[in-house]
Amino acid sequence: MKKTKPFAGVLSPVLTPFKQDLNPDAERFVAHCRWLLEQGATGLAVFGTTSEANSLSVDERMDLLEALIADGIDPELLMPGTGCCALTDSVRLTTHAMHNGCGGVLMLPPFYYKGVSDDGIFANIAEVIERVGDERLRIYLYHFPQMAVLGYSLDLIERLLETYPSVVVGVKDSSGDWSNTEAMLKRFPGFDVFPGSEVFLLPGLRGGGAGCITATANVNAAMVRNLYDRWQTPQADALQEEITALRKTIQAYPMIPALKQIIAHYRNDPAWVTVRPPLVRLSEAQARSLIADLEQKKFALAA
Amino acid sequence: MKKTKPFAGVLSPVLTPFKQDLNPDAERFVAHCRWLLEQGATGLAVFGTTSEANSLSVDERMDLLEALIADGIDPELLMPGTGCCALTDSVRLTTHAMHNGCGGVLMLPPFYYKGVSDDGIFANIAEVIERVGDERLRIYLYHFPQMAVLGYSLDLIERLLETYPSVVVGVKDSSGDWSNTEAMLKRFPGFDVFPGSEVFLLPGLRGGGAGCITATANVNAAMVRNLYDRWQTPQADALQEEITALRKTIQAYPMIPALKQIIAHYRNDPAWVTVRPPLVRLSEAQARSLIADLEQKKFALAA
Repeated sequence: MKKTKPFAGVLSPVLTPFKQDLNPDAERFVAHCRWLLEQGATGLAVFGTTSEANSLSVDERMDLLEALIADGIDPELLMPGTGCCALTDSVRLTTHAMHNGCGGVLMLPPFYYKGVSDDGIFANIAEVIERVGDERLRIYLYHFPQMAVLGYSLDLIERLLETYPSVVVGVKDSSGDWSNTEAMLKRFPGFDVFPGSEVFLLPGLRGGGAGCITATANVNAAMVRNLYDRWQTPQADALQEEITALRKTIQAYPMIPALKQIIAHYRNDPAWVTVRPPLVRLSEAQARSLIADLEQKKFALAA
Repeated sequence: MKKTKPFAGVLSPVLTPFKQDLNPDAERFVAHCRWLLEQGATGLAVFGTTSEANSLSVDERMDLLEALIADGIDPELLMPGTGCCALTDSVRLTTHAMHNGCGGVLMLPPFYYKGVSDDGIFANIAEVIERVGDERLRIYLYHFPQMAVLGYSLDLIERLLETYPSVVVGVKDSSGDWSNTEAMLKRFPGFDVFPGSEVFLLPGLRGGGAGCITATANVNAAMVRNLYDRWQTPQADALQEEITALRKTIQAYPMIPALKQIIAHYRNDPAWVTVRPPLVRLSEAQARSLIADLEQKKFALAA
């Protein structure tokens, strides 16, 4: 029997390492996923924005997912991103995730056309659900209007929840707008709301949230997990302040190249800085400045 | 020897018909392409925005392209859209287009990430060009900021032109901003500038433009072509007014479903109204109103 709510806690949207020829580096990817789980990540949101997933073909994503599972990582811990512009790509990736036993999928709305109605997004998601036709399917809606422009309005979420209550079980809210996260928490009790940043972990948990899915977990999963475990203790606010400060330091730089730079530096593994165009790695000056900014900070990767 | 400037005149970004099961309808697609060429389209910009191309997988696009060529349509007349979010998808589609002898390709920038620098877009396009590695390659940049959000700035175009003068040969400017089209025409003499709407056909030609690539050609190629052929005659301004009026009538409705509705109506072929989600077909009221608005108009499909 499939769990109704397969995820809770701290999920990391996993960075995708590339080789110098810009092909995905499956070996480093698997090793990084294993490290994240050891650090306390409760799940891996592979192939999200942080993963440069939209810079990968459907086949490249499927190959990487299979590499994780072949290495013995429990597929129940995986929440791959499977929402694409093309209906048929979303269906193919979602079906593949289900065939591989993934705990759930994280679904961007089809994001090319702008000015699309809620009816159109609903029809797209409904078509994916019907075509995949797998009762084990658990969808987490991926709301990130700054990147996808299209997002999931509260009314659209309500409609999806009413129509597919056992399938549409949660949301990652990357709007960065606490009032939106709060509105989701209040309007949809029992729906698993994950803020898209650990900055909102404590307020989210206090409001009934399920945890967080945050890019920064790539370098700081342990401390974020520590707050998740102790959110009802007197230390919670201080722990929140600490992880928020680290987040703010990092996000003063372009997030994805900055995270890769941090890993390259602290693991002494320069190959990690590679990004796929259109992203660009940090300049040398930015890289130096970022590492200097982090020197006084305590965080998981540096420990 | 490959032509340096393979396209001029009136190109239609071809609508993609779907069957009721939402699979592409290759038969209707081929027939529509043949009709567009008979009507005077000088080229076919298959797999653009109007084509719902981003709602198609890479394989679906390749299959449709092969269907056209198998049917005997001259590949030199084809300018398929091949710019995707994923570098590897852009490379695969562009290589496929070159292997099939297409006249050129229309390239969206990688459009998922927002706030990407010109350096990042340049690196992406450069990587596609290097990987395809085909001296026959002719790229038309597809500038459509309202949909892709990312676009090609004038400085970026200059850099691409300087680096790849024989490859980057033109642009489709769908900004709808005449001052931008005019700036391209003035700054890059010899570069083939196609406004993305026939509304700017005459001013474009007067400023040294190459023609236009316009969605409305799906129903009105003959009249747009007629203006292209007579733009230096005394009738030109009147012809421009006529096609502009038709455009404005149609674009009062969502453009892609409206064009499909017009074809369904005038060909008495209701299957044509099908769109792939997230697009939605016109409501019955919208459809009736659109056809009523067109009743007093003269245009190619209605003739």
